[in-house]
Amino acid sequence: MKFLHTSDWHLGRQFHNVSLIDDQDVVLQQVVDYVRQYSVDAVVVAGDIYDRSVPPTQAILLLNRVITQLCQELSTPVIMIPGNHDGAARLGFGAEQMRGAGLHIISDFSQMLEPVVIHTDDAGEVAFYGMPYSDPEQVRHELHASVSTHDEAHQHLCELISRQFNSSQRHVLISHCFVDGAMESESERPLSIGGSDRVNHQHFLGFDYVALGHLHQPQFKGAEYIRYSGSLMKYSFSEQHQKKGMNLVEIDRDGFVGTTFIPLKAPHEMRIIEGELQAIIDSAKDDPRPEDYLLVRLTDTHAILDPMDKLRSVYPNVLHLEKPGMLIGIDQEMRSQRLKRSELDMFKDFFHEAHQVPLTDEQEQAVMDVIQALKHGEEQ
Amino acid sequence: MKFLHTSDWHLGRQFHNVSLIDDQDVVLQQVVDYVRQYSVDAVVVAGDIYDRSVPPTQAILLLNRVITQLCQELSTPVIMIPGNHDGAARLGFGAEQMRGAGLHIISDFSQMLEPVVIHTDDAGEVAFYGMPYSDPEQVRHELHASVSTHDEAHQHLCELISRQFNSSQRHVLISHCFVDGAMESESERPLSIGGSDRVNHQHFLGFDYVALGHLHQPQFKGAEYIRYSGSLMKYSFSEQHQKKGMNLVEIDRDGFVGTTFIPLKAPHEMRIIEGELQAIIDSAKDDPRPEDYLLVRLTDTHAILDPMDKLRSVYPNVLHLEKPGMLIGIDQEMRSQRLKRSELDMFKDFFHEAHQVPLTDEQEQAVMDVIQALKHGEEQ
Repeated sequence: MKFLHTSDWHLGRQFHNVSLIDDQDVVLQQVVDYVRQYSVDAVVVAGDIYDRSVPPTQAILLLNRVITQLCQELSTPVIMIPGNHDGAARLGFGAEQMRGAGLHIISDFSQMLEPVVIHTDDAGEVAFYGMPYSDPEQVRHELHASVSTHDEAHQHLCELISRQFNSSQRHVLISHCFVDGAMESESERPLSIGGSDRVNHQHFLGFDYVALGHLHQPQFKGAEYIRYSGSLMKYSFSEQHQKKGMNLVEIDRDGFVGTTFIPLKAPHEMRIIEGELQAIIDSAKDDPRPEDYLLVRLTDTHAILDPMDKLRSVYPNVLHLEKPGMLIGIDQEMRSQRLKRSELDMFKDFFHEAHQVPLTDEQEQAVMDVIQALKHGEEQ
Repeated sequence: MKFLHTSDWHLGRQFHNVSLIDDQDVVLQQVVDYVRQYSVDAVVVAGDIYDRSVPPTQAILLLNRVITQLCQELSTPVIMIPGNHDGAARLGFGAEQMRGAGLHIISDFSQMLEPVVIHTDDAGEVAFYGMPYSDPEQVRHELHASVSTHDEAHQHLCELISRQFNSSQRHVLISHCFVDGAMESESERPLSIGGSDRVNHQHFLGFDYVALGHLHQPQFKGAEYIRYSGSLMKYSFSEQHQKKGMNLVEIDRDGFVGTTFIPLKAPHEMRIIEGELQAIIDSAKDDPRPEDYLLVRLTDTHAILDPMDKLRSVYPNVLHLEKPGMLIGIDQEMRSQRLKRSELDMFKDFFHEAHQVPLTDEQEQAVMDVIQALKHGEEQ
């Protein structure tokens, strides 16, 4: 059996104040076209369907069209989980009513424990377990589990799921998380501020395939079958050299066979162009893709009048302008200031931010003692 | 065949800063209990399911529970349309996928023309046509129809629907509109500011039953089978004497048989209490419903310290306080000022508000001429 694994659609995302909805529409049609041409047994979306919990109407209409094409026209089941950008309750409305039509939105823990089972000739029954994105507090609260990190939460959820395993079935997990050691991109939103959001891939070893979402770069981690598809398209300029696409996953009666990466092509690429203004303008006429979304980094060191207007006369979609040549001095100064800040200084800032009052002398001494004791411990 | 007609649930509504979600939950359970006990062939909700286009999560979860009880547990089809408070695209997500499970959310004009047909032994096929709430601009734009008022829009939509009529079926319309001559309540939001929002009931005469939403008072208009169920519960103090409930509609092979009004009972009534502070407090001990949501109108004419605190010691849910006794003087003064304002004064205020500059002398003269000409015309 074959299924498509995709994730991080982020429908409704804005990029430097430009709506990407038309680009997303074009790329999703490539997903639909692939299913139409080759036919697969299921399409999996591993979270961050929308870019925010209350998505704009255009994003809802687009998802509705795509879902109807896949489930209704092409009779292909779609299995999705909410990611950290989605509102689980909002995305999950009507999930119970949609199942019969082959649309499986797994948005709570009770649904997580009832796999979507797909019957195939060549691989028998394949059970898809979806783990709706949830922070450790939710897992602790809703499942009365003593977990305090993302890692512990995932370990607990994987244990719950593995108790449901039916040995006559193959087992696929869908999860939205940050596997420890995997590569980040700039366009992801951290799952946890301050605390650790990393999850050990060991928890996932018992599955035949793990369809991951959250990280925007396609990659596997720990084992070839624990894999990120990466995002639908590029969502930051720093991803300019990444390939975007989806995983075609093949499973047989013995489990994981392999994946094939199916590239997806956005109508506008995201690119960074660096150079002096006049040189960039001069060479634009030979650029085969002048409509791309561009970040232009000007290396001119003198002041320039209206550089954006001049650039847009040849590159209409310049979205951001940087002038590093003029900022070198400032940048270096800021960096050296940051390096000088001690642990005590950072804690003082944090305390002040949290309590609206500064540390007393006594408290400051106590914190200094703790820091010194810790440092002393580290050195031993 | 019998079906329940209800409307204007307004899930997620706040009332004087108090969330009504728990009250709405209790009342909706009465709807579910009725279906469980007596079993009906369908439940119709004629718009304003939610109180706003982006409802709070609690409202989504409540609707999800109710829908799952009705459609899944009780296998009773639910047919709903968006009202002027709902976001049609948002409410309609996944509609295509939900139909098979008996949840019919009719949120666009193409769905409007494909009725939900329910097969019954005693009435044959009953076709439910849902008209999603839409203003004349939408009808004009999406259906290329030359309509400019709500009345013309409804006439056009009814004509489109009646072309789909199958003479072997009974025909039920679900619409969210203001039928001309029907009674308003204070808690409705006008459908149109300035323009006319009234619809002639004549357009509806060709249906066997018309399940209306928008007006919060149960009533029929034009014919016994053109009927509002009224809102799920009271949403303003001025509705204190209204009965709230739903219509049990009976249809046979020959069409409309009749309706029975099934009362729904909110856990807190909404009441207005009027009197002097001390008298209200004294008689509270004999009040059988001290937990009701109250508007208290104090008739004391002297100043009172902390009247709200004193009242809440006996009536914990006093939500609003009025002191007409102390305002009589002011009120009368304002009213007489208002009466003295001429058309010219009102136009000057409007112009200033709209343009941020006063009328010039020349403009003022021109407006006076127009007003005088109009008055002259009226008198003839």
